[in-house]
Amino acid sequence: MSLKTHKILFQPHGKEISVADGENLLRAAMEAGVHINASCGGEGVCGKCRILVESGDLEGGGLDKLSTEDREHGYRLACLSQVKSDVVIRVPVESEVDASVLNKHTAPRHTARVKSFSFEDLKEKGLLIPPVEKKYLKLPEPSAQDNIADVTRLIQHLKVQYDEHRLGVDLDVMRKVPDVFREKKFEVTATIVRPVREDGKNQIVNIEAGDTTDCNYSVAMDIGTTTIYGQLLDLNTGEVVSEYGDFNGQISYGEDVISRIMFSEKGDGLATLQKRVVETINGVLDRIFKRGKVKRECITTITLAGNTTMTQLLLGINPRYVRRAPYVPAAIMYPPFHAQSLGIDLAPHAQALIYPGVSSYVGGDIVAGVMGAGMYKSEKLTLFMDIGTNAEIVIGNKDWMACTACSAGPAFEGGGITFGMRAAKGAIEDFSIDPISCEPMIVTKGNVRPKGICGSGLITIVALLFENGVIDNRGKFNRNLNTDRIRQREEIWEYVLVWKDATQIDRDIVITEPDIDNLIRAKGAMYSGALTLLEEVGLTIQDIEVIILAGGFGSYVDLEKAMTIGLLPEVDPEQVVYLGNSSLLGARMSSLTNVLRRDVVDVVEMMTNFELAETPSYMDHYVGALFLPHTELNYFPRLHKRLQEKTRARQAS
Amino acid sequence: MSLKTHKILFQPHGKEISVADGENLLRAAMEAGVHINASCGGEGVCGKCRILVESGDLEGGGLDKLSTEDREHGYRLACLSQVKSDVVIRVPVESEVDASVLNKHTAPRHTARVKSFSFEDLKEKGLLIPPVEKKYLKLPEPSAQDNIADVTRLIQHLKVQYDEHRLGVDLDVMRKVPDVFREKKFEVTATIVRPVREDGKNQIVNIEAGDTTDCNYSVAMDIGTTTIYGQLLDLNTGEVVSEYGDFNGQISYGEDVISRIMFSEKGDGLATLQKRVVETINGVLDRIFKRGKVKRECITTITLAGNTTMTQLLLGINPRYVRRAPYVPAAIMYPPFHAQSLGIDLAPHAQALIYPGVSSYVGGDIVAGVMGAGMYKSEKLTLFMDIGTNAEIVIGNKDWMACTACSAGPAFEGGGITFGMRAAKGAIEDFSIDPISCEPMIVTKGNVRPKGICGSGLITIVALLFENGVIDNRGKFNRNLNTDRIRQREEIWEYVLVWKDATQIDRDIVITEPDIDNLIRAKGAMYSGALTLLEEVGLTIQDIEVIILAGGFGSYVDLEKAMTIGLLPEVDPEQVVYLGNSSLLGARMSSLTNVLRRDVVDVVEMMTNFELAETPSYMDHYVGALFLPHTELNYFPRLHKRLQEKTRARQAS
Repeated sequence: MSLKTHKILFQPHGKEISVADGENLLRAAMEAGVHINASCGGEGVCGKCRILVESGDLEGGGLDKLSTEDREHGYRLACLSQVKSDVVIRVPVESEVDASVLNKHTAPRHTARVKSFSFEDLKEKGLLIPPVEKKYLKLPEPSAQDNIADVTRLIQHLKVQYDEHRLGVDLDVMRKVPDVFREKKFEVTATIVRPVREDGKNQIVNIEAGDTTDCNYSVAMDIGTTTIYGQLLDLNTGEVVSEYGDFNGQISYGEDVISRIMFSEKGDGLATLQKRVVETINGVLDRIFKRGKVKRECITTITLAGNTTMTQLLLGINPRYVRRAPYVPAAIMYPPFHAQSLGIDLAPHAQALIYPGVSSYVGGDIVAGVMGAGMYKSEKLTLFMDIGTNAEIVIGNKDWMACTACSAGPAFEGGGITFGMRAAKGAIEDFSIDPISCEPMIVTKGNVRPKGICGSGLITIVALLFENGVIDNRGKFNRNLNTDRIRQREEIWEYVLVWKDATQIDRDIVITEPDIDNLIRAKGAMYSGALTLLEEVGLTIQDIEVIILAGGFGSYVDLEKAMTIGLLPEVDPEQVVYLGNSSLLGARMSSLTNVLRRDVVDVVEMMTNFELAETPSYMDHYVGALFLPHTELNYFPRLHKRLQEKTRARQAS
Repeated sequence: MSLKTHKILFQPHGKEISVADGENLLRAAMEAGVHINASCGGEGVCGKCRILVESGDLEGGGLDKLSTEDREHGYRLACLSQVKSDVVIRVPVESEVDASVLNKHTAPRHTARVKSFSFEDLKEKGLLIPPVEKKYLKLPEPSAQDNIADVTRLIQHLKVQYDEHRLGVDLDVMRKVPDVFREKKFEVTATIVRPVREDGKNQIVNIEAGDTTDCNYSVAMDIGTTTIYGQLLDLNTGEVVSEYGDFNGQISYGEDVISRIMFSEKGDGLATLQKRVVETINGVLDRIFKRGKVKRECITTITLAGNTTMTQLLLGINPRYVRRAPYVPAAIMYPPFHAQSLGIDLAPHAQALIYPGVSSYVGGDIVAGVMGAGMYKSEKLTLFMDIGTNAEIVIGNKDWMACTACSAGPAFEGGGITFGMRAAKGAIEDFSIDPISCEPMIVTKGNVRPKGICGSGLITIVALLFENGVIDNRGKFNRNLNTDRIRQREEIWEYVLVWKDATQIDRDIVITEPDIDNLIRAKGAMYSGALTLLEEVGLTIQDIEVIILAGGFGSYVDLEKAMTIGLLPEVDPEQVVYLGNSSLLGARMSSLTNVLRRDVVDVVEMMTNFELAETPSYMDHYVGALFLPHTELNYFPRLHKRLQEKTRARQAS
C-alpha cells in the first residue's frame, strides 16, 4: 500500500484537495465539493464526466471512450481516472451541474396554473384542520393545597381554557416542564400536534416559557432525484415565508433512480446516499430559515414527498427490489417519526411526515400531485402526467384512479442527447427555423451563448424540423435540402444548431438522428402508456376532460410543440393545467391541513397500479407511437391539417 | 493547576486507580468501582464513609467528626478527604455495601404472601390481554401480477390469517422487511405490540425470518432507591425465567432520595445519576439473560417501576421540585418509549413502560403494589404500608383510595442508628433477652459474627427491651438493672448487644438511647400517618380489614414486635398480607397483561393524595405516637394485657 499523496487543483473553482495515490478522480471531486456530471453512476458508460487535464498525469482516463480529438486535447473521463501525481484539472462548463438556475424564477410558459389554496379557501371548504397549534397558558402557581404534577396542571388547564381533550405528552416535554414552568412564572406555550386519525391523541410535543404562539412554522419539501426544494410555511397565516432549491447531493452517484439503486447496493452505498440527501436537506433548511428569518426551534413538522426510490433512500430502506422484477417496494405508507432520527437538523420535537406512494414507480411525489391539484376531489376525467425519465401517468377522478409509470429514457432531461443538458443557463430553450434557408433562430436560458439543448428546447426543435419538412415522420433528415447545416459525420446525419464560434463550448452544437430517435422513443413510451391505461379502463383519448402536467418539465414545454411530436394528445390547450412542482405542492397542502393527511390514505388505496410490461397491448401502442406524431395521424387532426397546408405551400413554392 | 497524579489502592478489593492531585477520595472510590456508604451524599454529615489509611497521606479527612480513638487508628471520612500522595486505603466491612445478600433467597417471616397470578388465573378472570404477541406467516411470493409492497403484503396476510386489524408499522420494520422477507422464502414472524387504549393501534415492531414465535419475552424491573431487581418473563407461559438484583449504582451518591436529588442539582449530577442507574439496569439485564439463556433480541418490552424520584432520575427529568415545597413532580404518567433512547441495552424495537405514580412521594412503586396486590379490585378496606425512610400509606378499596407519604427517617434501614446497617450478612436480625440477667441471644443474617443491626432486628430488640422492662415507654434505659451491658458513655446510655471480641468489626456493638429515640420517631411518623389518613376519610384503625405490607422490610419484620413498638396497629396477624417487592410484582403483572396497563390509568386518577404537613391533626397524632407503643395504650389491648402480666411477674419475683 502506497502512502503517497497528491494534490489536485480543480479549475475554474480553485478548489484544492490532497488524495492518496491512485484515488479515483470522480470520487476526489465529490470530496472536494466539485460537482461533475456522472449520469451512469461512475461506470464509464455515459461519457458525461469529461474533464481536461491541464498539468500532471492521470492513469486510465477511458481513452478508448473518447474521440481522437478529445484525447489529444487532454480530455479524460473522471470516473475512469486514477490520480498518480499532482494535477490541475479543468472541469468544462458542460460537465458541471449549475445550481443557481434553480432559484431563479423564470415565468413558466403556461398561465393555467393550479392555484395554491389560502387558509381562507380551506376554511370555506371545511378543509382546514391545522396539524400543529400553539396554545398560550397562564397557569396558577402550585401551592400546598394544589401540588399536582406539572404535566397534570398543563393538561387540566388546556382542558379548561381551550377545551383540549385526548392529550398525550412527549417524554421530552416532561424533561423541560419543571424549569420552563418556573422560567416565566408559569406562563407557558404548549405546541400540540393534531392526530391524523380522528380518534388519535393530540400530542403535546413542546413547551416553552412565555407566549410564543406567533412562532409556529412548518416545512414542505420535495425530494427529487435531481433537485430538492423546500418551502417554509407560517402556520398562523398559511403563507410561504421563504423557499430554496438545490441539487440533490446524491447526483454525484448517478443521475437517475436506477443508478442510485445500483450505487446503494455497493458496500455502504445506502448509508452514503442517505447521508448525502440529508446534507442537501439540511443545506436547504439553513437557507430557508435564514431567508425567512425564522428560528429552527419554531418548526414542528416537515412534510417530505419524493418518488419511491428517493423515499426509501432517505429512510435508509434498501431499494434493491425496486429495480428488480416484479418491482416490489418495501412499503408505501410510512409512520411519522422524529426528523432528528434521520439526521435532519430540526429541533428534537420536530416530526417528519413522508408522503405515501402507490408502487415502486408511482411514488409519493405523484400522490402529492394528485392531492395538491385536487384531482382526487374532481368530477372531471383527468389525465395527470409527470414527464421525465421515469414518467408517471394517472387517469381518473374522485371516484377511481388508475396509474402507471413508464421508462421514457432520459431524453426529456437532456440525457442520451449528444448536446443534451439540464434546463440550466446556456441551454437552448426556444428555436425557430426559416423554412427556405433552414437557418435557425436560437434562444437560450439566461440569454447567454449556448452550451447545449434542454428537454423542452429539444421538443421545440424536433417539432419545427418535422413541421418544416427538415425531418420526416421517422425522424430522418431530408438529405435533399440545400444547407450546410445538414451533414453526415462518422455515418451519422446531423443538423448544426450553432456553429462552434458562437458557443460557450468551442464545438459545433448539433442535433443528430440518434438524438431525434431517442426523443421519439421517449415520447412514444409516454403516449402509448397513456393510451394503454385508458384502454385498460375502457376509455379513449377523447374522453379526457383535463390534462394536468406535473413537474418542472411540464412548466416549460411548449404545449403545441409537445402535441406536434405526439408527446401529448391533441386537446384544446385551455384544457391543460400546469401544476409545477407537484410534489412540493402536495407537501405544502399537507403541511397546512390534516384533511389531506387523512384523505391521502383513502386515495392511495383507491389508486390501482398497472404494470405496462404486464399489459400486452402496450407494445402495440408503443410501436404505433414511434412516429411523428403517430402512425394514426387522425389522432392529431389539427396537426394533420397544418401539415397538409405546409406541404401544399412547399409544393407551390 | 497541578498536573500531579497519585495512585490509590483500595483494600481488600485490590482495586487501583490513578487520580489527579487533590481528588476527593469518595469520588475516586466511585471511579474505581468501590462502593462506600455515603448516606448523606458526601457532605460529611453521616459519618458512614469511615475508611482506614494504611499508607500515604490524605488532606482533610473530617478529623473533628471522628472519635479520638478512630483518629489515632488512622480512620478518616472519605467524603472529606483529598488525595495528596500515593495511598493505600482499607475500606472497613461496615462501610461497604454488600450486594451478594440480594440474590440469596431467605424465607420471609410471613407466609401470607400475595400469590402471583398465572396465565390460567388471568384467563379465568378475563384479565389476559397479552401486551406482545408473535405471529408466524408463510407469505405468497410476489409476482408480476401481485407486486404490492412488502409491508402491504404483511398487513394483508395478518388480516387474513390472524384477523389482525388496526395495524401500524415501525419505520425500523420497513428497513428490515426487504431482506428479512427474502431470507427464508417469505416465511416470517411479526412481533405485535398491543395498544394500551382499546382504540389504539396494534403496532408491528419487529420482523424476523422464519418462525421465532417461541422467543417472546419481557422484563419487569423494580428501580429502588437502594436496589434494582429484574425478572425475565416468558410471554408464552407467563413464567419467571430468571431474576437478579443489584444495588442501584446511584447509591454512591447518597443513600436516600433527598441526597440523590441534591446531587442531581450539582453540575452534571442529573446526567451522572441517570448513567449510573442505567448501568445497573444493564448489569441486571446481562445477568437475567445469561441465567435465563435468552437472547436479548427476544425482549420486546421492559416495565419499570420506581418511586417518583427514581423515575425522574431514570428519565433524565430534573427532580429539583420534588424535594421543595410544595413538592411538585414533573409528571405522574409517562408515555412508552424506546428503551435504547435511555441507553438501556435492549434491541432497538424494545419498548420501555414506566409505572405511573400519584405524587412526589407516592410513586410508581406504590401504584405497582396496589395493582399487583389486586387492592384496586378488592371489596375489603385495606391498609397498604410500605415501610422505609420514605414510608407510603394507602387506604381504600376498589371504590376509593387515599394515600400519603411520611418521612420516617432512615432508622428502618439502619440509618441514624449507631451500628445500623442494611439487612446484609452479619446484621443482627433476631434477638431475645433473659428477663433476669438481661443477657441477650443474637441471631445474624448468614449466621456469621455480627457487624451491626438491621431495621427488622432493631424493632425486635427495642420491642423486647421494652416488654422486659429494660427500657420504659419513652425508650429510656432502666438505670437500676444489675448488668454491665447497660452503661453510660460520653453522656449517652447504651446497651451492649455484642462484646467487641465476638464481632466482625472489633468494636462493641451497642444500642443507645438516641438509637431508640430515632426508631420511636420513625414508627411514630408511620403510625400517625395512618391514623391521620383514616381520620381524613372518616374512619378509624378498627375499620381496617386487611393490612398489606409492601417492600423488602415488610417481609422480614416480626409482626408481633412491630405491633409491640406501635409501628403497626394491633390486628390479628392473619389479617396481614406480605407483598414482598410490590414494585416488581406490579411491573411483572403489567408485563403479562394489558388489562393492568389500562386499569392503572383509572386507579391513579382515583388515588387522592394527602400531604401530612398540610393536615393539622398529623402533629397531634405524631406527638401521641412518640411512646412505646403509644400514649393511648388501649389501642393495643393485647400488648396492654401482656405488659400487665409481665409487671406482675417481675413484682412477684
